[in-house]
Amino acid sequence: MFNKRTKIKDLLVQEPTGQEVTVMGWVRSFRNNQFMAVNDGSTNNNVQVVLELGKLDDETLKRITSSASVKVTGKAIASLGKGQKMDLVADTLEILGDSDPMKYPLQLKNKPTLEYLREIAHLRFRTNTFGAVFRVRHALAFAIHKFFNDKGFVYLHTPIITASDAEGAGEMFRVSTLPLDNPPKNDDGSINFREDFFGKTTNLTVSGQLEGELGATAFGEIYTFGPTFRAENSNTARHLAEFWMIEPEVAFNDLEDNANLAEEFIKYLIRYAMENNRDDLDFLAQRLAEEEKQLPQDKRSEMGLIEKLEFVMNNDFERVTYTEAIDILLQSPAYKKKKFAYEVKWGIDMQSEHERYLVEKHFKKPVIVTNYPAAIKAFYMRSNDDANPELGRGPTVAAMDILAPGIGEIVGGSQREERYDRLLERMSEMHIPAEELWWYLDTRRFGTVPHAGFGLGFERMVLFVTGMTNIRDVIAFPRTPGSAEF
Amino acid sequence: MFNKRTKIKDLLVQEPTGQEVTVMGWVRSFRNNQFMAVNDGSTNNNVQVVLELGKLDDETLKRITSSASVKVTGKAIASLGKGQKMDLVADTLEILGDSDPMKYPLQLKNKPTLEYLREIAHLRFRTNTFGAVFRVRHALAFAIHKFFNDKGFVYLHTPIITASDAEGAGEMFRVSTLPLDNPPKNDDGSINFREDFFGKTTNLTVSGQLEGELGATAFGEIYTFGPTFRAENSNTARHLAEFWMIEPEVAFNDLEDNANLAEEFIKYLIRYAMENNRDDLDFLAQRLAEEEKQLPQDKRSEMGLIEKLEFVMNNDFERVTYTEAIDILLQSPAYKKKKFAYEVKWGIDMQSEHERYLVEKHFKKPVIVTNYPAAIKAFYMRSNDDANPELGRGPTVAAMDILAPGIGEIVGGSQREERYDRLLERMSEMHIPAEELWWYLDTRRFGTVPHAGFGLGFERMVLFVTGMTNIRDVIAFPRTPGSAEF
Repeated sequence: MFNKRTKIKDLLVQEPTGQEVTVMGWVRSFRNNQFMAVNDGSTNNNVQVVLELGKLDDETLKRITSSASVKVTGKAIASLGKGQKMDLVADTLEILGDSDPMKYPLQLKNKPTLEYLREIAHLRFRTNTFGAVFRVRHALAFAIHKFFNDKGFVYLHTPIITASDAEGAGEMFRVSTLPLDNPPKNDDGSINFREDFFGKTTNLTVSGQLEGELGATAFGEIYTFGPTFRAENSNTARHLAEFWMIEPEVAFNDLEDNANLAEEFIKYLIRYAMENNRDDLDFLAQRLAEEEKQLPQDKRSEMGLIEKLEFVMNNDFERVTYTEAIDILLQSPAYKKKKFAYEVKWGIDMQSEHERYLVEKHFKKPVIVTNYPAAIKAFYMRSNDDANPELGRGPTVAAMDILAPGIGEIVGGSQREERYDRLLERMSEMHIPAEELWWYLDTRRFGTVPHAGFGLGFERMVLFVTGMTNIRDVIAFPRTPGSAEF
Repeated sequence: MFNKRTKIKDLLVQEPTGQEVTVMGWVRSFRNNQFMAVNDGSTNNNVQVVLELGKLDDETLKRITSSASVKVTGKAIASLGKGQKMDLVADTLEILGDSDPMKYPLQLKNKPTLEYLREIAHLRFRTNTFGAVFRVRHALAFAIHKFFNDKGFVYLHTPIITASDAEGAGEMFRVSTLPLDNPPKNDDGSINFREDFFGKTTNLTVSGQLEGELGATAFGEIYTFGPTFRAENSNTARHLAEFWMIEPEVAFNDLEDNANLAEEFIKYLIRYAMENNRDDLDFLAQRLAEEEKQLPQDKRSEMGLIEKLEFVMNNDFERVTYTEAIDILLQSPAYKKKKFAYEVKWGIDMQSEHERYLVEKHFKKPVIVTNYPAAIKAFYMRSNDDANPELGRGPTVAAMDILAPGIGEIVGGSQREERYDRLLERMSEMHIPAEELWWYLDTRRFGTVPHAGFGLGFERMVLFVTGMTNIRDVIAFPRTPGSAEF
C-alpha cells in the first residue's frame, strides 16, 4: 500500500494543531527555495509546504519545478502568511516525478490562452480554470443521477449503435466493419450490407428518445444519460460532433407536466452546484469577470456568474407560446428598426438572434416556448389541432424549447403523439417508414398512454453553469470537424 | 397537468384508511369481471383494483385486457384477500389505451421464454423478470456514481470516437462519413482519410483508460462509466458488441491499493442492491431457483442468489498470484485426471475452465489473481522485474483480474508503468507507435506518479447480481453479431 495520504481538500478544513500528515500532489509554484504550493486536484486551493532552509541539497531544490510530483510528510501548523490558514512544515520531501521546465508545455506564469490549452487538452486539467470546470461538470453529472433516482426514475442505457435513422435529428456517422477499399457488393453493384457486422447499415445514435419511450411505457419514468452524435460540419462555439445528452421520458405527463419537470430539474442542478462547488464557481465567476473586462461595455454580461445562477434558481421561468413569441418579436423595437437579419413571421424556425432577443432583451430570464408549428417539428410530437388559416397559422404541436441567456436552446422536448392513427398519418406525411418503426408503433397499439419528455444537452448546461463561452472547453476531449485528438 | 397520480410503490406502503387515490398503469390480469391487477413499473407488486359488479357496461369490461392502460380513482381499503394488504375500490375507471388480446404479442399466461422475449425486447420490460432486472440495473448504476462521488472521484467522460487504436484491446468498429460505394482516393489508390469527417481514420473506443490516466494525473482520482465496443464475432452468453464499462483510475495507488478499491467497490454495489432492491432480488432468486429445477442436480448452483450475494458481501476475496494459481491448477485432481481441455503451465493465458476451477471448485469465492506474465498482458502494465528462467518463469507485470463464480472475469486492472524509459521500451517491444501516444507519454515526462486502475464490465456485474445467465437479458437492446434491433 502506497496511497496513505490526506487529500488537500480534506486537510485544508482541519484545524492546524501540529498533526502529522502526508500529502501527494503536483507543484504549482516554488519561491525563495522555501515555499512550495502543492495541488492534488481535489480542490483549486493549494497547500503551502514550508521547507526548512538549508535542509535540502541544491540538487533536490532544482528538481522542485512546476508540475513535478511530490510526496511530503510534515506537520500542519497555523500559517503566519496571508491568504491561508495553514502551512505544512515538511519533515520529509520525496520527488516522485520530475518535470523539466524547459520542456513542460504548460507554463502557468505566461497565462496560456484557452485556445492554446485546447491543443494540450491532456494537461489542461492541471490549470485552475479546467480544474474548476471539470469538478463542476462532475457535480452536475452526479446531481442529474441523484435528481432522477430520488424521484424513482429508471436509468435506461439506450443503444449507441442503431440501425434506425428514422428520427432525422441530424446527419449521422456510419458504423461499419466493411473494408472501405474493397467492400462486398451485390449483383447490381451496390454495397452488400448483409455482410456488415450487424447484417445491415448502422449509425451512431442521434437521440435515445424513441427507445426511451419503450422504457417509459413500462416503468412509467425513465431517463437516459449518454453520448449522442451529429456528423454536421458545424465549426461553432456551441456545437460538438460527440456530446452527452440527458433524456427523461415520462408516462402520464402532458406538456405542462413536462415543462414543470424541466424547470425543476434545471433549478435543482444549479442549486446542487452552488451548494457543493461554491469554491469552484467563485473562481469561475472571477475568471469570467476578468475575461469580460477585455470586452466593450455593451458586450459584457449584466450579471456576474453567481448573480445569474441565483437569479435563475430563484425565479420562475417565463412561459409563452410560439405564437405569443412571434407577436413579441413583431412588436419589438428591434424588428421595427430592422435589426433582425432573418425574417420574422408565424411559421419560421426562430433563429438564434430571435431567441436571444426574447431571452436576453425582452424577458431577461429563461423562457419556455411551447406549441410550435407542426411543419418545423418532428413526427412524434402531439398534434394540437388548432390551425387558424385566417390568421395565417397552421396547426401546432405540443413541443417546448427552453432558451437560456447566453446559451440559446438548452432543452427541447414535447408531449408525444400517443394516438396510433394520428401518429401513422403524420409519419406518412413526413415520409417516415412505418415498417422500420414497428416496435415504436407497438407502444401506441398496446396500452398507449399520454406521455412526454425532453432532451437536455449536457455540455450546454455545463457552459451555462461555469460561464465558459466555448463548448470545447467543457468536454474533456472535444470531437469537432477535422479534430479527434487524444 | 394530467399526471396527478400516486405511484403503486408508494401506495402499497401506505396504511389503507379509505383515502382517495388515483393510480395509472397497465392491466396485468383481470378476473371475475371484478378484480384487476394494475402495474405501473415502479415495483413488481401490483395494486388490486376492485370494481363494483354491475357498475361498468359490458363494452368497457371487454376493454380491460392484458396491457391495456387505465386510470383509476378510488379508495384504499384493507384487503380481505390473501397476499395483499390493500384493495383499491374504484370510483371511476378510465381506459387510456386499449390492447387487443388477439394481437398483443406478450401473453404472460403462456410463460414466454427468455429467447422469445429478446425478440420483443421493446415489450419485455412489462414482465416481472425484466422489470426486476432493469430496476436492479438502475440501482447498480446509481450506486456506482454514489460510491465514487462520496470518495471525491471526478466522473470523466472519455471520448467514444477515437483516432487512437493503440491499446489493442480488441477489434474495432470504424466510424466514418465517407461514402462506401465511392470513397475518395489518393494517387496510389488507397483511401484518402483526410477527407473523412475527422481528417483521419476513427473508431469506436474499446476503453477509456488511456484518457482516464490523463485525468487521474491531474484530479488524483477519476472514473469513467460509458459505452465501449468490440467488433468481435463472439456469439456467446457473455459477450456484447456494445457494453458499458466503469474504469476508475487513481494516482498514488499501487496494485494492493487497486485490489482493495475493487473489492470494496464490488461489495458496496451488492450491499446497495440488497438494501434498496430486496423485493426485486427476492423475485429474481425465486426465478433462478425455478430455472435451475430444470437442470440435473450437479449443474445447479450450490447457493441461492440471495445466499450468494450475502456470501460475497461478507467474505474477503481470495488473493493469489498468477504463479500460485498455476501451481494450484497443476496440483488439482482435475489436472491429474486430465479433465482440462487446455494445457496448464506457467505462461498460459488461463482459459475459462481454469478460472472456473479456481473460483467455483477450489476457493468457492471471488478470487483476485495478481502478477501475470508480461507476455500475455498489455503494454501499460507495470513491470515487476522478477523473471526466474530456472523455474521457467518470465517477467511478470502488476496486473490483476477478479474472477467471480458463474461469471468468470469481472474486473481487469493493473498498476500502470509510470517510468518513462520502461514504458517506452515496452511499447517498442510490443510495436506500439510512440508518436501516436505522445500525449499519453507526456504524463510520464511531467510529474509522473505511481498509479493504478481497473475496468468493471457493467453487464457482467448486473448478471452476477440478478442471477440471469445470458448477457443479452441484462442490457435493454443488445448489440451482437448480426443483430442491432430496436
